[in-house]
Amino acid sequence: MREAYQDQLGKLADDLADMCRMVAEAMASATQALLDADLGLAEQVITGDEAIDDARSACEEHAYALLALQAPVATDLRTVLAAIHAAESLERMGDLALHVAKAARRRHPSPVLPEPVKGYFAEMGRVAVQLARGAEEVIRSQDVEAARALEDADDEMDDLHRHLFTVIMDRDWPHGVASAVDVTLLGRFYERYADHAVSVAKRVVFVVTGRMPGSGDEEL
Amino acid sequence: MREAYQDQLGKLADDLADMCRMVAEAMASATQALLDADLGLAEQVITGDEAIDDARSACEEHAYALLALQAPVATDLRTVLAAIHAAESLERMGDLALHVAKAARRRHPSPVLPEPVKGYFAEMGRVAVQLARGAEEVIRSQDVEAARALEDADDEMDDLHRHLFTVIMDRDWPHGVASAVDVTLLGRFYERYADHAVSVAKRVVFVVTGRMPGSGDEEL
Repeated sequence: MREAYQDQLGKLADDLADMCRMVAEAMASATQALLDADLGLAEQVITGDEAIDDARSACEEHAYALLALQAPVATDLRTVLAAIHAAESLERMGDLALHVAKAARRRHPSPVLPEPVKGYFAEMGRVAVQLARGAEEVIRSQDVEAARALEDADDEMDDLHRHLFTVIMDRDWPHGVASAVDVTLLGRFYERYADHAVSVAKRVVFVVTGRMPGSGDEEL
Repeated sequence: MREAYQDQLGKLADDLADMCRMVAEAMASATQALLDADLGLAEQVITGDEAIDDARSACEEHAYALLALQAPVATDLRTVLAAIHAAESLERMGDLALHVAKAARRRHPSPVLPEPVKGYFAEMGRVAVQLARGAEEVIRSQDVEAARALEDADDEMDDLHRHLFTVIMDRDWPHGVASAVDVTLLGRFYERYADHAVSVAKRVVFVVTGRMPGSGDEEL
């Protein structure tokens, strides 16, 4: 019984790690599509979101099966529920990559981003993908220290996001209100993506250690 | 056993209904604070968010206890998990009301909203509160039809949000980029709040009928 539980929990962890990889790829492509106004790449991300939604459903089915067949209690129960929450965050990360890709498609062939902010989004994209890959690493290695490192990357994202806002808010922003609105929403998508990645990592730490790291962020 | 399960499930539903009331009040006050630049009211919402987070934790604890003690399977199991997801959405709705209140506080004593968009936010606030109260009604009455009505209110929110954007995007927007950025983020907070309210209602419909209404919205 115990062995069967551990075996099924391992499968569930693999599902989550695979979802991390999927949403990392989605955000990497969405960012590229945004920076290069690449319609084909944007369409790829938009089409690919369904596979992420399906992976989340598969995760939940495995978690439900585990709960129904093994009826875990105490920490085992919380572990499975943490995995269900993590899958929800990962699907949401896929949705946020989808929003980025849709913004690139909506403005095509014009670029969404004025030149002076492209660098910020290249960086936010890099950090976002690093966070999702980091969460995958945490799941596969069950390395609690690796999870702590993700919080630094999240701080980096928050700094980038703050600086981006000072650029938009600058009285001399010459790119018009419409582009400020696009950039504002896109910045928010990257920030939320990072928050979800950290929350996934924290839940995995909980799965590994049985203790939930302090959230300290109502965004999670 | 069965009776104990139904009894505990009833308590869990009451917890969720109470959370709906709390987040409805939070958004009502946050909207008022936003429209009147009322710092006291904004502070009230900001302080009050902790109670909503606590209510969510209490919901989860009750759900965990139910799973651990009753080890429900099949539909009963999915019902409890739907309640856990609903509690998560409700906490998020509280966070979004918190963001609105923080925006009101950040710009105080200046109003955040230029006159021409105040009407939109008064309406979005009204619809948001109506959605949260509607979700409470759905939980207390277990009335599936009432849940369907919420989707109309959500469409109303989406229309308001779309119109708001046309106002901001208007070439003649005279209120500057900074205020466009504020209005953009605030509009997004109301839209997300509404999406979460509908997802809560859908999960309750699932709890009542055992069938999940089609989501049709990747935002959920």
